[in-house]
Amino acid sequence: MPQETSQPAFVLIRPQMGENIGAAARAMWNFGLDRMRITAPRDGWPNQKAVAMASGAGRLLDEAIMCETTAEAVADCTYVYATTARPRELTKPVFTPAHAMKDAAQRIANGEKIAVLFGPERSGMENDDIAKANAIISVPVNPDFASLNLGQCVLLTAYEWRQATVETTPATVSMEGEWASQAEMEALATHYEDRMTDAGFFYPEHKAPSMKINLRNLWSRMPLTRADVQMLHGVMRQMVRWKERGPDDR
Amino acid sequence: MPQETSQPAFVLIRPQMGENIGAAARAMWNFGLDRMRITAPRDGWPNQKAVAMASGAGRLLDEAIMCETTAEAVADCTYVYATTARPRELTKPVFTPAHAMKDAAQRIANGEKIAVLFGPERSGMENDDIAKANAIISVPVNPDFASLNLGQCVLLTAYEWRQATVETTPATVSMEGEWASQAEMEALATHYEDRMTDAGFFYPEHKAPSMKINLRNLWSRMPLTRADVQMLHGVMRQMVRWKERGPDDR
Repeated sequence: MPQETSQPAFVLIRPQMGENIGAAARAMWNFGLDRMRITAPRDGWPNQKAVAMASGAGRLLDEAIMCETTAEAVADCTYVYATTARPRELTKPVFTPAHAMKDAAQRIANGEKIAVLFGPERSGMENDDIAKANAIISVPVNPDFASLNLGQCVLLTAYEWRQATVETTPATVSMEGEWASQAEMEALATHYEDRMTDAGFFYPEHKAPSMKINLRNLWSRMPLTRADVQMLHGVMRQMVRWKERGPDDR
Repeated sequence: MPQETSQPAFVLIRPQMGENIGAAARAMWNFGLDRMRITAPRDGWPNQKAVAMASGAGRLLDEAIMCETTAEAVADCTYVYATTARPRELTKPVFTPAHAMKDAAQRIANGEKIAVLFGPERSGMENDDIAKANAIISVPVNPDFASLNLGQCVLLTAYEWRQATVETTPATVSMEGEWASQAEMEALATHYEDRMTDAGFFYPEHKAPSMKINLRNLWSRMPLTRADVQMLHGVMRQMVRWKERGPDDR
């Protein structure tokens, strides 16, 4: 099989509706996966509804490997996961999607070939299919309401593949523009304190010291960029200008 | 607003299709979230298509808080995330869904009230809405193909909320049945070694020691349960019984 092996193959087992095959292709490609295999699609192949739904991810359908059986679909793989809501009585390791995709990434780095099986829409996978898998992937859903469909299951697994393998962009804070320095913050606080003093804001006098501290503290809690600081200076300057035009200027 | 506050409210901003509102409700409830707010749904409210799609999660629609504006929808919240594909020029922290939901869980534990905004289907959120958020959630998608829809965005965020807050079931291995002990594994290895010796398997003689080591090593690499071991004993016993019936018994 000519598909490259730096990522897991996603195998749709006997999928029913073309729309769901197309949705699975989109979900995969959203997270950079493009190795699709399909066993015995109910409505034959190619499927126009699948193509229509896949839109931008149609290439995955063109390149999908069609198989008669689950055994054929995973014949070249060394480790196979089956996604299923309820682990049956079969004795197998059960992973969350996050853990499974980390495990898969490591196996692929070690030269293994990986497949992930997804069962048909209504009936789910048969024990026969699950028996071909080395491990089970079970999404930790609300026990009172487990209603993930095929596309959603593919989406969550593909999402975790990307999380396991791509350095996710700054999980913390990415800002446009530079943070203001302490000196710039100090100048801003002083500017406001001075003008508000001119304006008679710190009144009555015995409360002025604590009012000034509170105002300075307010600025210090703000994560301001240099541009923010410039804007706040401008706000104050404009108020002063407006004031200087006198009470008749509206 | 009477919604309880141990989880974030998910706010759908000007959603268009009822189906998508229903799908969002299902996605939320799959991961135990049930605080929905909706601003200005295009097709009015209640919406029969939303109800039909929500099926088992219809309660979320019944209890959803309807608002005129984004400002109204987040009025009681202390920290607001906006989900958007492309962070605009607005200066804001940008989180992955995973990081944002961990952050949200911590804020809620500290008594904060949290909302997550989801924009309308096609157009996405306006800068006006985004400006009301304290931080942005951006799903780390394939830069060549970013096509997540409203329901998928809600699904991934709700999934990460559950991952951040619920002890996910054994991320490693949960087995039905007990692992075999070393003594049981040893007995199995000996059983096979003895019978295969009887059968003349370890031949030629100078290779027998390494063949025996290889066979024992094979067993030791297998993660076998006590039931597996019993079955493997049974397999061997049956082969011996079959052999003892003589060559004419098929």
